[in-house]
Amino acid sequence: MKEKTLVLLRHGESVWNRENLFTGWTDVALSDRGRGEAREAGRLLREEAFDICFTSRLKRAIHTLDIALDAMDGVWLPVVKDWRLNERHYGALQGLNKAETAEKYGEAQVKVWRRSFDVRPPALPEGDERGPDLQRAYADIPREKLPRAESLKDTIARVVPCFEERIRPQLEAGKRVLIAAHGNSLRALVMYLEKLSEGEIVELNLPTGVPLVYRLRADFSVAEKKFLGDPAKIAARAAEVAAQGKARG
Amino acid sequence: MKEKTLVLLRHGESVWNRENLFTGWTDVALSDRGRGEAREAGRLLREEAFDICFTSRLKRAIHTLDIALDAMDGVWLPVVKDWRLNERHYGALQGLNKAETAEKYGEAQVKVWRRSFDVRPPALPEGDERGPDLQRAYADIPREKLPRAESLKDTIARVVPCFEERIRPQLEAGKRVLIAAHGNSLRALVMYLEKLSEGEIVELNLPTGVPLVYRLRADFSVAEKKFLGDPAKIAARAAEVAAQGKARG
Repeated sequence: MKEKTLVLLRHGESVWNRENLFTGWTDVALSDRGRGEAREAGRLLREEAFDICFTSRLKRAIHTLDIALDAMDGVWLPVVKDWRLNERHYGALQGLNKAETAEKYGEAQVKVWRRSFDVRPPALPEGDERGPDLQRAYADIPREKLPRAESLKDTIARVVPCFEERIRPQLEAGKRVLIAAHGNSLRALVMYLEKLSEGEIVELNLPTGVPLVYRLRADFSVAEKKFLGDPAKIAARAAEVAAQGKARG
Repeated sequence: MKEKTLVLLRHGESVWNRENLFTGWTDVALSDRGRGEAREAGRLLREEAFDICFTSRLKRAIHTLDIALDAMDGVWLPVVKDWRLNERHYGALQGLNKAETAEKYGEAQVKVWRRSFDVRPPALPEGDERGPDLQRAYADIPREKLPRAESLKDTIARVVPCFEERIRPQLEAGKRVLIAAHGNSLRALVMYLEKLSEGEIVELNLPTGVPLVYRLRADFSVAEKKFLGDPAKIAARAAEVAAQGKARG
């Protein structure tokens, strides 16, 4: 039987990455560099043919997809935007930089929030204007489903049902799928596909803007996994993301 | 009962408009000016709140929508791309300029193709590489549904079912709808909504990049119709489109 194709693409640099701020669900735009990464990813994907694309409701992922589709001449492809593919919600840390956060909560605590599997950062208070419940973009989602702070575990708990309900049936129908999303929502998918442990997933960092191609068997086991592009560039990008991981969450 | 909101937006200038070529289903990009028109439309629409958007499978309409959504801070909105909202298929005329066309077929004949309601231009021959049946973008559409040349009447005959099947139910459910599409596919919707005659619709030219806002009653009759923006600019844009109409199809 023919293998299924699933490609994961992590958005490139945003304007907040540069300033070292916790972003989470804050809807910040790509930087010029991030747009360049998206174009490069699209060029690398020109040889792949897709049938449907998925992304989050955050513009840094949506624009990454739009730019990549343009570069691969696939602007016409259907695109589904699901809030469950959003980045991990970083709660009250959103908008703070690392120095402020360490000052406010202590270095050791910040490390726990960033590196642990199931510890949540402090939640956004009720009524906080950053709350998803007060934004038009989530007005159609039942309020009780919208997070005010998430651990990686919480993020996985919404990404996996999204995959099983909306994406897996497409792959089962033989559709080739491209997903443009975020560091933590894509981690959730990698964990699910590769059956990684909690310890393994907190150590995994996907490089930004580098398409990760999976060929899956009928039972969704991984027949092949590869990053697209120049290996030296990918290694450099991965090292950079790992270093960012040390400096940021 | 609350009125329904439906906004129609005709894409701005494409790179072929400038060169005076018959475009139809040829997938050409917006010009810089066209992108500017889209941004302006988005700014004008900031006061409207939408729930869902529809567009064609042609990038000049999709990019118009993407740019407008960005300007109105609505990148997260769901977007449905339906081939039935594509421009009128201009058959074998696609890619020819007006001078070439007049030379090949005669001025009088060209006028008939451009101004009549139900006369088709010459069809693309079977096997022509411009044929929608040979393009990835339409590979999922039954071959017999794909046109090789259309009259305005043919275009209307696919746009109206698209509206009735996919768009009207959204409006009935109280959703506010934005449609970014093409001169002739939008004409079809105006004819349908305003119950225009064949004679009236061939005379109607929508200005490019100017949002046309309809408020509809429960029975879909028109309670209000207005173009958004500076009236002097709209009049200038409409005059320009009418003049283009004289020079082109």
